[in-house]
Amino acid sequence: MNVRVRWLRDSLRSLNLDGMIVSNPVNIKYLIGVEAEGILLITRKENIYITDGRYTEAVNSILTIDDEIIVSDIKDVSSYDCENFFLFCENVGFEENYVTYAQYKQYMHQYKINNFVETEYIIEKHRMIKDKEEIENITEACKITDKCFEHLLTYIKKGKTEKEIATEIERFFKENGAEGNSFDSIVASGINSSMPHAVPTDRKIQSGDIITIDFGCRYKGYCSDMTRTIFVDFVQDYIKDVYDLVLKNQRNMFKEIKEGANTKNLFRMVNSDFKVNGFSLIHGLGHGVGLDIHESPSLGERSEMLLKENMVVTNEPGIYIPGKFGVRIEDTVLVDKYGCTSLTKSDKNYIIIKA
Amino acid sequence: MNVRVRWLRDSLRSLNLDGMIVSNPVNIKYLIGVEAEGILLITRKENIYITDGRYTEAVNSILTIDDEIIVSDIKDVSSYDCENFFLFCENVGFEENYVTYAQYKQYMHQYKINNFVETEYIIEKHRMIKDKEEIENITEACKITDKCFEHLLTYIKKGKTEKEIATEIERFFKENGAEGNSFDSIVASGINSSMPHAVPTDRKIQSGDIITIDFGCRYKGYCSDMTRTIFVDFVQDYIKDVYDLVLKNQRNMFKEIKEGANTKNLFRMVNSDFKVNGFSLIHGLGHGVGLDIHESPSLGERSEMLLKENMVVTNEPGIYIPGKFGVRIEDTVLVDKYGCTSLTKSDKNYIIIKA
Repeated sequence: MNVRVRWLRDSLRSLNLDGMIVSNPVNIKYLIGVEAEGILLITRKENIYITDGRYTEAVNSILTIDDEIIVSDIKDVSSYDCENFFLFCENVGFEENYVTYAQYKQYMHQYKINNFVETEYIIEKHRMIKDKEEIENITEACKITDKCFEHLLTYIKKGKTEKEIATEIERFFKENGAEGNSFDSIVASGINSSMPHAVPTDRKIQSGDIITIDFGCRYKGYCSDMTRTIFVDFVQDYIKDVYDLVLKNQRNMFKEIKEGANTKNLFRMVNSDFKVNGFSLIHGLGHGVGLDIHESPSLGERSEMLLKENMVVTNEPGIYIPGKFGVRIEDTVLVDKYGCTSLTKSDKNYIIIKA
Repeated sequence: MNVRVRWLRDSLRSLNLDGMIVSNPVNIKYLIGVEAEGILLITRKENIYITDGRYTEAVNSILTIDDEIIVSDIKDVSSYDCENFFLFCENVGFEENYVTYAQYKQYMHQYKINNFVETEYIIEKHRMIKDKEEIENITEACKITDKCFEHLLTYIKKGKTEKEIATEIERFFKENGAEGNSFDSIVASGINSSMPHAVPTDRKIQSGDIITIDFGCRYKGYCSDMTRTIFVDFVQDYIKDVYDLVLKNQRNMFKEIKEGANTKNLFRMVNSDFKVNGFSLIHGLGHGVGLDIHESPSLGERSEMLLKENMVVTNEPGIYIPGKFGVRIEDTVLVDKYGCTSLTKSDKNYIIIKA
């Protein structure tokens, strides 16, 4: 049997669960490698993937007999079948953070489940710790991202628009081995950089601009995430202080992000230093990266967790002055026992474009 | 007050609801024009949009005083505030088809809601009927899609890969007034066309190929959706029969898709004719198009609804022969009292590329 499904079955047993309905498509991709619309039923005896006619051919071409997964077309699954999948099961798990309230009610009704039990991100928590192959895929995504940044430094010229630069990023990714963007690129120039989640506009790059570029790609399903803040022709003095403060904190975090570090404390360390200087960290310090661009753990104020070896997270402090400008510097990093390694490796000193 | 929020308040009153929590970001965009992460509270007295520091500046720049919407940063909302938003409210609505089971429990707890009531797609149902501006936006998205198809007929050549064509589609959209793709383009050539949801591969276009291209763009947030199946050098005879059958049914539907038509019956009409010929319709006949690429109504076997004037839906019959090939032809159409008008207008006769 597929090793990850085997892990899930063992975990369910230790939680006294007789089965589980897996609905989150990213978790299904993680478990059985399939990207389609459907749900995975882990029953006492079998693993059943229920999808529809649009996907059955593609799914069957991916799964092998060793996976031990039965693929069913939803058209061939009767209500009698549904009632029998979890027959004699006392406790069946579900993904309460993915399943809507309406689906929850429908599952209860359809599968005649006695006791439908919340599984508290069981699969997402397992996904936090990356195996060798996952780390290789993320590393490759980061390499392509570095190459893209190098390319951008010759591509970006005065007169180009933010949108054109964003389009070029996607084109580069697709033509250099990636599946595409891992999220909509942020290219925020001048005053637009003051918004952490700015959407690229038709604004043209001009002399004296600061440009925040937040981008990443997907390689074999796995994401990268990097931000660099660069300059056109010169760096204005009032921006230097902010840039230096962000960079100092981002660099400092490489010593702090390591096995055993408390995620909330990491956020607070940066936020305290920002506050001493009259600023504050208005978004999280970072987040896990994997099959999802944003996944657990979150390095923020609202959650608390201890980092572990082989987690992959972002390190992305930023300062934003409303109506003026913003600076964010971000790497995707691999956590180890004594610190962390940056998987994105592009230069973080002042980069000044003159063209 | 914003006219759509006014509509919602009136609707809630008629359903005996004292308020509502709107969580679906597409519904929030529809109601107040804002694209961010947050929730919209419709309380007895006020409309409150709660977001976080990353978005407050952008949101405040979009909303005007006439919208009558209070924007709050989640950091400034205390648990005391939450308990007071719905004070003395008996029934408060929520989106049971969007809110997860975990969020449902959290809302109940956080807002101390007495009776949390399912609202059965109240906003999605309203979104089905498009107003003048929405139709203009979809029409523009369809025009750009037609232009893109015209461009593709000169761009596609033997030796180009499916991925390259998909990248070119996105580039064309972004450089011709659209925000980008409305969904990941499908470019499925040769045997790949047998999978309705094929993902573009590195397969090179070759002589004798059939190519299914399913694509669309987004204009001012609104989507288009079109599929054409084209040929390289010549059309193989065994494909012609299938193509003609699909096209006959697709054309026939233009008379049937109209105010009062039953969506399930439309599906069945096409499926019956396919079955007479030894095939079947393995996916829905179509779906609503608007701010979402897939929205209500669904023209399929599993739901039943009567079409109304100013709905915008797709008309997309397809036949797929596993391991061999597939044909799908799709337009985005505007429903009126006596029939429907195609908003995508590209040629549907055999198109044969010779290059």
